[in-house]
Amino acid sequence: MSQTRFSGVLAPVITPFTETLQPDSKRFTKHCNWIVSQGVNLAVFGTNSEANSLNLAEKIHLLEELVTSGVNPAKLMPGTGCCALTDSISLTKKAMELGCGGVLMLPPFYYKGVTDQGLFDFYSQVIEAVADDRLHIYLYHIPPISQISLSLRLIEQLAAKYPNNIAGIKDSSGDWNQTQAFNDLAIENFAVFCGSESFLLQNMRTGGAGCISATANVNPSAIVGLYKHWQDTGAKQRQEDLNKIRDIFQAFPMIPALKAATAMYGEDSEWVRVRPPLTQLTDEQNSILSSELSSANFKMPGL
Amino acid sequence: MSQTRFSGVLAPVITPFTETLQPDSKRFTKHCNWIVSQGVNLAVFGTNSEANSLNLAEKIHLLEELVTSGVNPAKLMPGTGCCALTDSISLTKKAMELGCGGVLMLPPFYYKGVTDQGLFDFYSQVIEAVADDRLHIYLYHIPPISQISLSLRLIEQLAAKYPNNIAGIKDSSGDWNQTQAFNDLAIENFAVFCGSESFLLQNMRTGGAGCISATANVNPSAIVGLYKHWQDTGAKQRQEDLNKIRDIFQAFPMIPALKAATAMYGEDSEWVRVRPPLTQLTDEQNSILSSELSSANFKMPGL
Repeated sequence: MSQTRFSGVLAPVITPFTETLQPDSKRFTKHCNWIVSQGVNLAVFGTNSEANSLNLAEKIHLLEELVTSGVNPAKLMPGTGCCALTDSISLTKKAMELGCGGVLMLPPFYYKGVTDQGLFDFYSQVIEAVADDRLHIYLYHIPPISQISLSLRLIEQLAAKYPNNIAGIKDSSGDWNQTQAFNDLAIENFAVFCGSESFLLQNMRTGGAGCISATANVNPSAIVGLYKHWQDTGAKQRQEDLNKIRDIFQAFPMIPALKAATAMYGEDSEWVRVRPPLTQLTDEQNSILSSELSSANFKMPGL
Repeated sequence: MSQTRFSGVLAPVITPFTETLQPDSKRFTKHCNWIVSQGVNLAVFGTNSEANSLNLAEKIHLLEELVTSGVNPAKLMPGTGCCALTDSISLTKKAMELGCGGVLMLPPFYYKGVTDQGLFDFYSQVIEAVADDRLHIYLYHIPPISQISLSLRLIEQLAAKYPNNIAGIKDSSGDWNQTQAFNDLAIENFAVFCGSESFLLQNMRTGGAGCISATANVNPSAIVGLYKHWQDTGAKQRQEDLNKIRDIFQAFPMIPALKAATAMYGEDSEWVRVRPPLTQLTDEQNSILSSELSSANFKMPGL
C-alpha cells in the first residue's frame, strides 16, 4: 500500500551551527516549525542545508531531534543520497524508521563519468537494502553541483523495476527543457519538482508537482501562494513577484544569503554561520542584501 | 619535532569487497603487504581506493585492521579529506592516533565555486582540531574529479600558517605545467608528488618527491626502479616502459582494470568487485586487458 506522494512547496532547510560549528538542533527545529507554519514541507539535508558538510551521525541526530520535537514526519523529505553506498543505506533506513514521507536522493557524486548501469546499481542497492514498499524516493538531478546527470533512460529503468519506490524527481538543472522532459516521462504518478520557484508556474502548467526551492526558507508563503493559485488570474504577477525576491538572493552566494536574511529578520545573529568550505557574507554584502530586501518590502512574518 | 616527509612511490591501494560489497580487510591487508614488499608506500583511501564510496566507520575499521596486522604505520598516507568537516577531523585524528606517516587530504568536493578563504578555513579547522605537530598533510589536487582547484596562493597561505603541517601535495591535474608550478613554490621541504608515473622522470628532474599513482597497485617495482634510477643512463627507457603499461590500463576505466589485473595475476576472482557507481569490466574488456598485458610480458611477481 503506497502512501501519498509529495506535492506543493518544500524547503531545503538551512542548517544552523553553534559557535563551535556543531549543528544546532534547537534553532533547526524552530526554523522547521516556522516553515511548516507557512504551508511548506521540509526537504531537510538538501544542497542548501549544507547537508554534504554534515556527517552521517549529525544527520541522524538532527532527524531524530526533529521528529522527537513533534514535527510531523510525513512532512519530511530528507536528503539521503551520499557518496558512500553504506551511508545512503543507513540514512534512508533511519528516514523510514522515523516515518518520513519520502527521501530526496542525490547520486553518488565523487566519481565522474560513471555509467547509467553504475547509477542504477547504486539506487538499486539502496532500495533493496532498505526493502520497504513505503520508501518513496525523489531522485535529485543537480548536475551543476553534483556533476552527475540522471538520464531519462536511467529513470525509466529504475521506475520500471521499482514502481512503488521511484516517486519523482527534483530538477535543479536550471534548464526548463530538462524539467519538461522529466514531466514528459511516461511514468505513473511521477512527481516532478523544479529546483527553483522561478519555474513554478511553468512546471504547474506542464503537470509538475511543485517546487523544492532554496528561497522557500525565507519566502515560503508567497511561493505557496503561487502554487495554490497557479490557475487563477494574477498567477503571472505572482510569478513575477517571486522572481524579484529570488533575484535579490541569487545575486549573492545563496546559502550564506539565506542565513543572513534569517539572522536579520529573526533578529538572531547566530544564524549567519556556515561550515567551510562556505563562507558567510561580508559586512558589505550583508548591508546590500539588507537594503535590497527592505526596498522590496520583504518580510518574514512570524519568524 | 617534525618526522620525515614521504618520498618515492605510493600506491592509492585498491579496496577489495566481499560478496555483499563490504570492505574485505583480509584481502586488503594482504595486498598492502605485497605492495610494501615491492618498495612502495601506501596511500590507502585515495581516489583509486574507492575511498569516497566507503563511509567513515569503514575507513576507520580498515585502517585499524591494517595497523593491527603489523603494517608499519609510518608507511601509511591515508586519504582523510571528506565533504564533511567532522568526518575529515575524525579520520585525521584516527590516522594520527595510529601513527600514520602522513595524510592525503582532498578538499571538500560537493560545493562548487568555493573561495580560497573557504578552503583555507576547512584545512585550518582540521589542523586546529587535530592539534598535533606530527600531522603531515599532503594536499590532494585532483580537479578533473573533485572539481575543486587548490590555488598556489591558498597553498602558500596554508604553509605560512602551518609550516609543520603542510608537507606537500599530490598533483593529479594531469597537467605538467601545474606540477611544475607546485615544484616552484617557495615552501621549504614541500614534497610534490605527481599523480601518474608518466610524469615521474620529469617530476624528479624538477625536484619533486616521487609519485602516487594508480598503477603502483599493479606495476610497483618497475615504478620504483625509475624512482631509484632517474639519474642513471636508461632512465628514459624506464619511463617509456612504464608508459606502455600505463597506457594499457588507461584505455579502460582505471579502478576496475586494476582490480581485474589483480584478480588475474593473483588468481583470485573476488578482487573484481567494485562498489556502485563503478562497474566491473565486461568479459570482453577483461579479455582485451588480459591479452594486452600478456603481450607486454606484464607480471605481478609474488602476488
